[in-house]
Amino acid sequence: MRATVLHGERDIRVEDVPDPVLGTSGLDAIVRVVAACVCGSDLWPYRGITRPAVPKRIGHEFVGVVEEVGSEVTQVALGDFVIAPFYQCDNTCVNCANGMSVSCLNGGWWGSETEGLGFADGAQGERVRVPMADGTLVPVPGGQPDPALVPGLLTLADVMGTGHHAAVSGGVREGSTVAVVGDGAVGLCAIIAAKRLGASRIIAMSRHAARQELAVEFGATDIVPERGDEGIARLKEMCGGIGPDVVLECVGTKESMDQALRSARPGGQVGFVGVPNGGPELPARTMFDTNVGVRGGVAPVRGYIEELLPEVLDGRIEPGRVFDLVLPLEQAADAYRAMDERTAIKVMLAP
Amino acid sequence: MRATVLHGERDIRVEDVPDPVLGTSGLDAIVRVVAACVCGSDLWPYRGITRPAVPKRIGHEFVGVVEEVGSEVTQVALGDFVIAPFYQCDNTCVNCANGMSVSCLNGGWWGSETEGLGFADGAQGERVRVPMADGTLVPVPGGQPDPALVPGLLTLADVMGTGHHAAVSGGVREGSTVAVVGDGAVGLCAIIAAKRLGASRIIAMSRHAARQELAVEFGATDIVPERGDEGIARLKEMCGGIGPDVVLECVGTKESMDQALRSARPGGQVGFVGVPNGGPELPARTMFDTNVGVRGGVAPVRGYIEELLPEVLDGRIEPGRVFDLVLPLEQAADAYRAMDERTAIKVMLAP
Repeated sequence: MRATVLHGERDIRVEDVPDPVLGTSGLDAIVRVVAACVCGSDLWPYRGITRPAVPKRIGHEFVGVVEEVGSEVTQVALGDFVIAPFYQCDNTCVNCANGMSVSCLNGGWWGSETEGLGFADGAQGERVRVPMADGTLVPVPGGQPDPALVPGLLTLADVMGTGHHAAVSGGVREGSTVAVVGDGAVGLCAIIAAKRLGASRIIAMSRHAARQELAVEFGATDIVPERGDEGIARLKEMCGGIGPDVVLECVGTKESMDQALRSARPGGQVGFVGVPNGGPELPARTMFDTNVGVRGGVAPVRGYIEELLPEVLDGRIEPGRVFDLVLPLEQAADAYRAMDERTAIKVMLAP
Repeated sequence: MRATVLHGERDIRVEDVPDPVLGTSGLDAIVRVVAACVCGSDLWPYRGITRPAVPKRIGHEFVGVVEEVGSEVTQVALGDFVIAPFYQCDNTCVNCANGMSVSCLNGGWWGSETEGLGFADGAQGERVRVPMADGTLVPVPGGQPDPALVPGLLTLADVMGTGHHAAVSGGVREGSTVAVVGDGAVGLCAIIAAKRLGASRIIAMSRHAARQELAVEFGATDIVPERGDEGIARLKEMCGGIGPDVVLECVGTKESMDQALRSARPGGQVGFVGVPNGGPELPARTMFDTNVGVRGGVAPVRGYIEELLPEVLDGRIEPGRVFDLVLPLEQAADAYRAMDERTAIKVMLAP
């Protein structure tokens, strides 16, 4: 089959790779990928900021149709349209039971070999072997979905669940004032999440016209283009002189986290989901003096799919609109380039 | 009147200072101190780790009787027995309304001059001028309390409210497993707080026999004397292999915060109230990977007094037992020495 392979800095190729086959555990499924995509976090190795051993299969977001199942699989069936979270999990261990399936004691990652699970294909390919299919996959009810819904369903594999995790971690509730730092796909999904959790004011920090527009359509009540001290001053001024109740940090740089921490009101909370690549360290003294809490991390999206799926299916939320470019799998290199150069918010790949 | 004055490293003296007088705002009260005490945080300047300008009036925890009130004071009356939080607040500003009275927009600190409020005496003295008396002071219902209750009431000025803040910030609830790092007065009060919030298991990290004993009487179900990696391994082993739901950090060193962060289970929370003197910085990447949140800080104890006071008055909780030494004000130097050398958990000063 064809799949995307990272060969080095800015060197992404689509190549022939072995077809996936069911393992011997009886717990696997083989899924034919209907749609995959490129994640902001895929850009770290693409840009050479992290340096995994190459060649490396890549991609961790996909939806598709179950083509084969092992003898022990009971929760998904041939022909099911399924959503895969960006990790594998058994959905039964103590961490999964605590809502932390992303820390599953038996979990694994796409495009990687995991002891006990074997190699799981990257998502940017034609097919994927799914270990622990019962725990990992979530079938979409009602058979094959309307193609127009596929992008929205695909966001449940990562970005919509991650934006939701930011809002949950930040403690957004009815009436909260919320600022969102980051106007990428996750930041935009965090706006959707904050709105559905009842935020009364949602301030999107963005300088890009197209993203500002989508932010407002998703529920942002205000746009603040300023950053750093200026941005903080604007947020404080807009929120009673003290700052928003919650700041959702969806970037992952030292600057964005610093802005988030210094923007929140005393006793407020930062919900963070930006991958803090190579740092930053958080100033405990500032947090102590202001009682601003920090909570978040790699999102346990598997557990959020059930909550968000009905709203995607009935159109109440439209996170699929973050995909502003769709390319065939064979043009994966163009997809990465568009994400890298920020000419696209998020690119969907259709094999 | 007589009051404690810091003159330099390990140089505490009790001296004659001016009697406090009501200011012109009409909002002050003068309180005769019935009991004050020495706080762990008083040891920072005492030890020369922080270096305020000296001579400096010191002490920030007191209970007493109202002797004079300004013309605009309506919430406290002559003769009231009152608890003062470790800061002054108006109890009406937006931060106070958000439950963050310690960040009151008009607040001040004991033993310090604040613009608009003037000089407020330190608590370790015979009398204290209280700015914004209506906002700051909480009268104890029922007139003069039984002397046996005074130590417990005094803890509501700081350590009991601070321990409670750790537990609230850590999100302790019915059934939580909780570890408490730090066996000082605040850590011991955090045990009381965790118990009353419904924790099913409370593990006290302590190596001192007397403190271990009090910890158990306060509600600790287990004692772990190990620290660092060994302590973390013990906690994980005791809590389902993954660690406690909540860790209450009541010390404030790099080591204690590190232990707290690495002990909590994935998705757990650190509630921190140890003053992070000169640091530490928190590792965002570790927090991201484990989804362990960090929340806490300088405790808004004013808002907790109403909740905790009835339980002190009827004996359901006995935080006053953290005082294991009572000295007259004139022996303040001995009190500091006992705290510094850890021969006492907490010392009460009775003028």
